[in-house]
Amino acid sequence: MKRRAEPCVGAIEAGGTHYKCALGTADGQILRSATFATTGPDATVGQAIDFFAAHGSELGALCVAHFGPVDIDRGSPRYGQVLETPKPGWAGLDVLGRYGAALGVPTVLQSDVNAAAVGEGALGAAQGLRDFVYVTIGTGIGGGVMIDGRLLNDGRHPELGHMHVGRLPDDPFPGCCPFHGDCLEGLAAGPALRARWHRGGEDLPADHPAWDMQARYLARMCMNLALCYAPQRIILGGGVMQPKGLLERIRSRFAEAMNGYMCPAGALEDFICASPMNGEAAIRGALILAGRALPPAPARATLGTATP
Amino acid sequence: MKRRAEPCVGAIEAGGTHYKCALGTADGQILRSATFATTGPDATVGQAIDFFAAHGSELGALCVAHFGPVDIDRGSPRYGQVLETPKPGWAGLDVLGRYGAALGVPTVLQSDVNAAAVGEGALGAAQGLRDFVYVTIGTGIGGGVMIDGRLLNDGRHPELGHMHVGRLPDDPFPGCCPFHGDCLEGLAAGPALRARWHRGGEDLPADHPAWDMQARYLARMCMNLALCYAPQRIILGGGVMQPKGLLERIRSRFAEAMNGYMCPAGALEDFICASPMNGEAAIRGALILAGRALPPAPARATLGTATP
Repeated sequence: MKRRAEPCVGAIEAGGTHYKCALGTADGQILRSATFATTGPDATVGQAIDFFAAHGSELGALCVAHFGPVDIDRGSPRYGQVLETPKPGWAGLDVLGRYGAALGVPTVLQSDVNAAAVGEGALGAAQGLRDFVYVTIGTGIGGGVMIDGRLLNDGRHPELGHMHVGRLPDDPFPGCCPFHGDCLEGLAAGPALRARWHRGGEDLPADHPAWDMQARYLARMCMNLALCYAPQRIILGGGVMQPKGLLERIRSRFAEAMNGYMCPAGALEDFICASPMNGEAAIRGALILAGRALPPAPARATLGTATP
Repeated sequence: MKRRAEPCVGAIEAGGTHYKCALGTADGQILRSATFATTGPDATVGQAIDFFAAHGSELGALCVAHFGPVDIDRGSPRYGQVLETPKPGWAGLDVLGRYGAALGVPTVLQSDVNAAAVGEGALGAAQGLRDFVYVTIGTGIGGGVMIDGRLLNDGRHPELGHMHVGRLPDDPFPGCCPFHGDCLEGLAAGPALRARWHRGGEDLPADHPAWDMQARYLARMCMNLALCYAPQRIILGGGVMQPKGLLERIRSRFAEAMNGYMCPAGALEDFICASPMNGEAAIRGALILAGRALPPAPARATLGTATP
């Protein structure tokens, strides 16, 4: 691969199931990428380091967009670490230390959903908006919140997936969050669907009652997000959002739940919408965040021909 | 009253039950005040205008801290108005227009709880903090959120009191919010207590089971606030927070509900605390906000002796 005028940046989307590495540009274009299964931290981080080491001379900075919770508060003694997570072996992992030591480039840690919010703002459904929420509903539920063009609490990121929305009276499933039982994630993430209906979301037909219940839970989530953040838009992504008709059901249940109170000014189709980024919001957002971590131009002139 | 070197500022705390007017300083000190019952908008606004008109030559700017929802988005066609409220006669009132026309000074509108958050930040329990939430639990439930030292969505303020936290399984009361039934406000504001237990909070002894249920609802609220905003502190005020022991119960139920997940770094006593401002957070915050609306010094030199 030939040298570029600007250094490449690296991004990792560290998900609970898949670990994706990309080399790209500071404006979020992916040049090459690799995806592998997330196993134990040593093996997984090792694979990622191998990917970037193979392009070491080109790499100018790295952003790791990590499944939460992670400590992204620069003032914290645990800065750069994975915090309490039900995922075996990962709690306490010093993500920043591992990658920084191995690759020797400026490295930043961000939550995967915060990176996705950055991606949606720059390249996706939130272009031109200053106040929006991105939520992914998959193995877990997590959200990135942009307020006035800045990530909410870039120090201690929110964990809105664990909010309480209340179990529906017709739902006998007690919830499966290992921390909270019937919090939102325990009732409406992928594992909850599987545990309640005895098959995964991908095997539940579009007319199965599962989807109306799912829509009611996600509508309550959207209601709480609308009331707590007063955003211009809520963008929903993740594997559990794929079923046809689910988005429309959520909008309809949301309108019913809000009952005319503080409703968004525009059409509901503009207020609650799907991510148009084919699952690349986080990795492309992480490239953009890595770009912001590049050293100033003079310091990186040795990496290629500096542009004026 | 003798002329001052700096003009006075005016503040109104327009609550659902009481309407409080104050003349004071831009750093939040009250010089004189008057409180009367909130009745219909014409009579109430008229009384407030009379109060300020009596001190007209001294008044440099006014901030109205109003019960929500109010439109505080300067780009909105309804800017300055009271929005959907169950309070008869008030929806659609052009607050800014009425006071601006009558008093002829720069006038700003803010939600009462946003003004209270400003007051707590400057003079109360949140001094020195950049990320905190103030919540009042009274006739309604409302919150003001400060993120990185700025009010959350100073354009379209949140209405977090109407979030869904889920009705408790041992609570047969269906909720009494006219919009949402069993949203948080419908389950835990003053009118809900009265409707569920057939007497007001002030008549329920400290060992009545009402308070444990109340603590569980407010703990869930605190949980959602902690997860959604990752604040440094949650400050609870309002009439329904007065009973002895309630704050301690909320902390204990909060710790139980969070179950070790993303818990605040410091002591729980520092994370969830009572307002120390004796109910003056909103009116004093509004004086500070009015101070920010004062015209630059040259323009107001005629009001008194300009200080250098």
